[in-house]
This record gives sequence, structure tokens and C-alpha cells, in this order.
Amino acid sequence: MKRNLLLTPGPSKVPVELCAVLGQPIIHHRTPQFQQVLKEVTAGLQKVINTTSDVYLLASSGTGAMEAAVANLASPGEKVITVEYGKFGERWAALAKAYKLNAVTVKIPWGRTITPDEVKTVLLEHPDAKAIFLTQCETSTSATPDMAAIGEVVRKTSAALVVDAVSALGTEPMMMDAWGVDVVCSGSHKGFMLPPGVGIVAVSPKAIALMEASSNIRFYFDLRKSRKAFADTDTPFTPAISIVIALNEAVKMLLAEGLEKKQEYYLLMAKAVWAATEALGLKVFAQPEFRSRGLTAIMIPEALNPKKLVKTMRDVHGITMAGGQGDLDGKTIRIAHMGAVDEYDIMTGLSCLEKVLYQAGHKFELGAGLAAAQKVFNK
Amino acid sequence: MKRNLLLTPGPSKVPVELCAVLGQPIIHHRTPQFQQVLKEVTAGLQKVINTTSDVYLLASSGTGAMEAAVANLASPGEKVITVEYGKFGERWAALAKAYKLNAVTVKIPWGRTITPDEVKTVLLEHPDAKAIFLTQCETSTSATPDMAAIGEVVRKTSAALVVDAVSALGTEPMMMDAWGVDVVCSGSHKGFMLPPGVGIVAVSPKAIALMEASSNIRFYFDLRKSRKAFADTDTPFTPAISIVIALNEAVKMLLAEGLEKKQEYYLLMAKAVWAATEALGLKVFAQPEFRSRGLTAIMIPEALNPKKLVKTMRDVHGITMAGGQGDLDGKTIRIAHMGAVDEYDIMTGLSCLEKVLYQAGHKFELGAGLAAAQKVFNK
Repeated sequence: MKRNLLLTPGPSKVPVELCAVLGQPIIHHRTPQFQQVLKEVTAGLQKVINTTSDVYLLASSGTGAMEAAVANLASPGEKVITVEYGKFGERWAALAKAYKLNAVTVKIPWGRTITPDEVKTVLLEHPDAKAIFLTQCETSTSATPDMAAIGEVVRKTSAALVVDAVSALGTEPMMMDAWGVDVVCSGSHKGFMLPPGVGIVAVSPKAIALMEASSNIRFYFDLRKSRKAFADTDTPFTPAISIVIALNEAVKMLLAEGLEKKQEYYLLMAKAVWAATEALGLKVFAQPEFRSRGLTAIMIPEALNPKKLVKTMRDVHGITMAGGQGDLDGKTIRIAHMGAVDEYDIMTGLSCLEKVLYQAGHKFELGAGLAAAQKVFNK
Repeated sequence: MKRNLLLTPGPSKVPVELCAVLGQPIIHHRTPQFQQVLKEVTAGLQKVINTTSDVYLLASSGTGAMEAAVANLASPGEKVITVEYGKFGERWAALAKAYKLNAVTVKIPWGRTITPDEVKTVLLEHPDAKAIFLTQCETSTSATPDMAAIGEVVRKTSAALVVDAVSALGTEPMMMDAWGVDVVCSGSHKGFMLPPGVGIVAVSPKAIALMEASSNIRFYFDLRKSRKAFADTDTPFTPAISIVIALNEAVKMLLAEGLEKKQEYYLLMAKAVWAATEALGLKVFAQPEFRSRGLTAIMIPEALNPKKLVKTMRDVHGITMAGGQGDLDGKTIRIAHMGAVDEYDIMTGLSCLEKVLYQAGHKFELGAGLAAAQKVFNK
């Protein structure tokens, strides 16, 4: 009967309404019923992404959506720019390397992200770059760049702007058309409150031209096949039917609540967590001007053994947060405020975090974190 | 309140027990709980496949598992043999082409499959082939080869034997080690009674040696990454958590019922459908010695408009069978007897098939198909 609260940045908590949808009897994918779902879910995702461009679904995790972007946008030997400010930025470079692209990698200190000026500089240095790949919400550091300003810079060049929005979509704003983003990659299991299994890829006309020209090896992730099939309200291969059906419901729920309102609420939860962090005498890892709405990485003194704290919260109290990733392994605790998480989940998580910090000997006044968060929520 | 019976060869009917598992609250994948699931499900699948070799799970459809086999077993320009006796055999050739392998394609008339002698001949002609790719249950024609005898032939050569068992696994026997099969590809949504979203790949030591040597481009489907991660009871990328958890339960259900007993039962259902087909004055498409246990493709005179019959059964009566695929489009109706389908589902399906055949003007004695099936079930 232990609580099972997921405050992890993917998978995120699945609301009970969507659990019920996931448990429904299956339908076949080559039917008018499923075609209706496909039509609705792609139209709904266009609203979330603020685009009139094509949106394709893949039966894959978020990495599959990222691979689709890399595999379709350039050809072996062609120059691309990948930007790293955390573990998921490194994945862009690893993918570009696997596909034998000529990748120029920009390394930015973790805790901040690339600035529009830095984007400008690297694109001036490499005017022959086919695309620049970056991360909207870097889940390992909880940092996010100024996508609107970066879009403004990239759209003046010939490069395509490819954004890993796996943990950002739904939570951070995404104005694909207005900002000039060419590819948005995402997944079902973060902002969309569902189990992993569906990859989402939106492609602008500029990206479509690149993908029709690319000579890269691809089959399962060949977006030309997706383009053809989705034009007929179909998928090139068997889709992850049950998750696609639930994704349609999730998107409807988000749109019914109002995306902007929801995104303001994620920001409010983020601010509550930042305030609690400070009140507990701890530090948020991401620099103030780069903090995401979707999750917060909190620096934990190594003496307190953050890995053990995460384990105790999960195994003793049934509250799952994430530890550090990559260079931050054993140094941070990450708490998600995305998808279906609400302020009471945050208060629950903070109660538990205070408990284990206190038991580990961290010095603070019990309730200080909660009070700080409560003030943010009730201003 | 209409009946929703899936008699399609993937997705197949999901039993209510597994619907309930799929609707459970999600857990995180980097936890001891999920590690326990991974351990159990891979051990369970080893029993189903009758192997001590590694079994990896991918977040993909069955085609993803097939791509993993192609991407990992050869290098560009290297010779492989693909065998076609239906639409899914053609997919092996398309994959080999996409990966720029030197593919020798053996085309066998649809309705039968390749014989062990034909396998011997093509391997003698091409002793430099790295692998031979074939289909255990060709879902488009419902034909299946003699895998044991083919394994006996291939194991005497240096080629790896790669089997698309997407619609076969669980339904047809698979003695991977005893038969000398090197790669088994499958998915969650056929014999395992679940929604699509999990690809299954088992690899022999011979296949592992090839995959470590291959210079093919691959990342998401890089089985070297799977090998490393699964050795640590982990997955290289986010797994399709909810379907993996349900797959563990599905495998337990199959093993608890007894695989052999279950496979005899699929054969009994198949025989009932064959008998009903004949009693209705129709023909089974697959030749008698090549008929699969998992589904039956029934030839329907084009004058009866099989596509319309399928549509009426589905939209009016809530009973979904599949139409013809590829060259058999508009020529067959396919009825699945795999996964959770039981004899009462078959009787339901046959009742409905008789109804629409009768309404379409086909001449037969009402009940003749049902009686023939009933006799098979009650011998």
C-alpha cells in the first residue's frame, strides 16, 4: 500500500484517467477508428507545437525521434553542429558520429546553455553546416536556452534548427513556426504524462527538403516513409497503438486546460522548488536565467550521499526522484514538475526530501523548505 | 456496446488480465523493481525461445527488431541471402538494400515457403553469404517453413540463420539452440497478446561475433549497446516500460499454461478453421504442408468482394479480421488463431464470416463451416 509517486523527469506520473485509457481493449491500426485517432492526435500536436508542419509518430523512445532527425537531415561527411550542455547534448554528437556526419561540437559549461550570440558565432564560422542540433530542456542539468532568440539567429542562415524537446514539449512553450524551428523531437513519457513508447517528430518544409536529399542509411526511421504514410493517415510500420490512443487523450487534456495556463503553472511549481531549495540551504544547479519549467536539479553536498537519499525516498517512502546523470552522478537530486505533477505532489516530494536530508544530518529548520514553497504557491 | 473481437494477426486480442496490467500506474525504469522485471522477462523469453543466448528488448515494433538484425549482422557490400514468400520476406530484402548489403534474393511462390533443399542449394551457390534471412510465419500468406530442417542445413555453413518470428513466437515452436537459429526477431503484439511497442531479439554467439565485427551504421538498434546494457540488467535507452511489464506477465501466463500444450491448441484451432473453410466451399491459401498454426489466409472469390466482407464484419458486427496484403490484396481474408484467441472466438468469427458470405450470395449451407469446426474441436 506504499505511495508510488513519480517525480522523475521521464517517465513522469501517469494520471489515473490515462491509466484507464491504456488499459482499454486494443483496436487494430488499419481501421477507420484508429485513423480518426491519428488525425486528431497529429492535429492536437500541431497545436501544442504551434505549427502547420507535418507531425509524425514513431514506435520508439525519444532517442528514436532524435535518431530520425540525424538520419534524415544530412548525408555522410556533411557538416552539422551539435551543442552540448549536458548528457542529452552529448547524444546528438554520438548520433552524428554514428551516422558519419562531420560534426562540429560546441561544448558549453553544464549549468547554463548556449546563448543566441554563441549560436551566431558558430554559424558564422561554419556557414556550410546543414543543421544545428540542440536541447530545449537538458534533463541532466535542468537548463533551457532562449529558443525564440536562437530561432531568430538560425533562420537567417541556411542551417536547419533541430531541437530535442523530449522533456520540454508540453511543459516549455514551443512556437515552431514563429521561432523558425525546423525539427522538434519529443516522446510520450514526459510532458505528455504517458509511458514511453511513442516518439514524436515535427518537420518544417526546410527539413523536408533536406530529408528528401539525404543519402543516409535509414529504414525504420526513414521520415520519407512517415511523410508518405501520414499523408494517407497511416503509419509506415505498426504503431504503438495503445500509447498513441492515450496520447490523443493526453493532448486533448492539455489543450482543454490551456497550454499557456499549464506552462505558467509548471513555472510556478519550478519557482516553489527553487525557493524551497534555497530555504534548505541548498543550491539549484542551473543558473537562474537558464532554469527550465519542467524539472530542477538540486546540488546536494556529497557528504549527504545523494544517491542514498534517492534510494531511501524511493524504497522506504515510495517517492521516486532522479539522481544525477553523467558528470553530475552522485552530486544532484532531480525533481520533476512536468506533465501531471501538481503542487500537492511537489509538497509531498519536499516533505520527503526534508525528511531524508534531516536524517542524513543536514542542518536546516524542519518545514523551512515546505514553508518557502507554500509561500510561492499562495502569493 | 458492440463486440470488439480482434481476430487479426497483430495486434491480436489482449486478454483482460493484461489490459489491467497495462493500466497500472507506471514505475521508473532505473529501479530495482524494473530490473527484477527485466531479469524475469528475459529469462522467460529464453524459455519460450529455448535458448541460453542473450535476449534483448527494443522500444520498437517488429520491424525495428528486423532492422536490428540486418544492421548488426553484415557490413555494406557483404553478401546476404533474403528469402521471399510473402510481404514480410520482401521487408528483409528492402532492409538489406537500405543497409547497402549485397543481397541475393530467393523468390518462392506465395503459398508455400522455402524447403530445406532449396536453402541448401542457395547456400552452396553463395558460400560467402554472411547470413540468410527468412520468415517463420509469413503473415501475408499464413505459410511456415520447416525451421528444424532448415536449421540443420544452415548450421553446417558459415552463414547465420536469421528468423523473422514476429508473428510466430509463442505460437509456433522455436528451438533456437537445438535447431541452430542465430537470430530470432519478434514483437509484443502477436503471440504475446499485447499492444505493439516492444521488439524482441535473441542472438546466438555466432550472431554476436558478426555484430561485433559489423561496420554498419547503427545507434538506436545497435545490439552492441543492448548487449552491454542487458548484461547489467539495464536497457541502453528508455524502454517501453508498461509493455515490458505486461510482457513479463504474458510470458508467465504462456509458460504456466505450458508452451507445448498451447501450441497444440493453436494447431487445433487452425485445423478447425481449415475444415470450416473447406465446408464453406472455399480454399486455404497456404499449401497443406506449409500451413501455420497462428493464422489462416482464406481465398475468397473476388466476386464476393472480400474487402467489403472484412469491413462489414468489423463495422457492423465488431469482429475484426484482416484482408489480403501485397499481391493478395482483395483476394483473401485472414483469421488469426494466436495469442489469447480461443475456440469460442473462432466459432464467433466463423459465425460472422458465414453471415457475411451468405449475405454476399455465396452458396453454402448455413452452419456448415461451424459444424466442421465444431467436429474438429470435439473429436
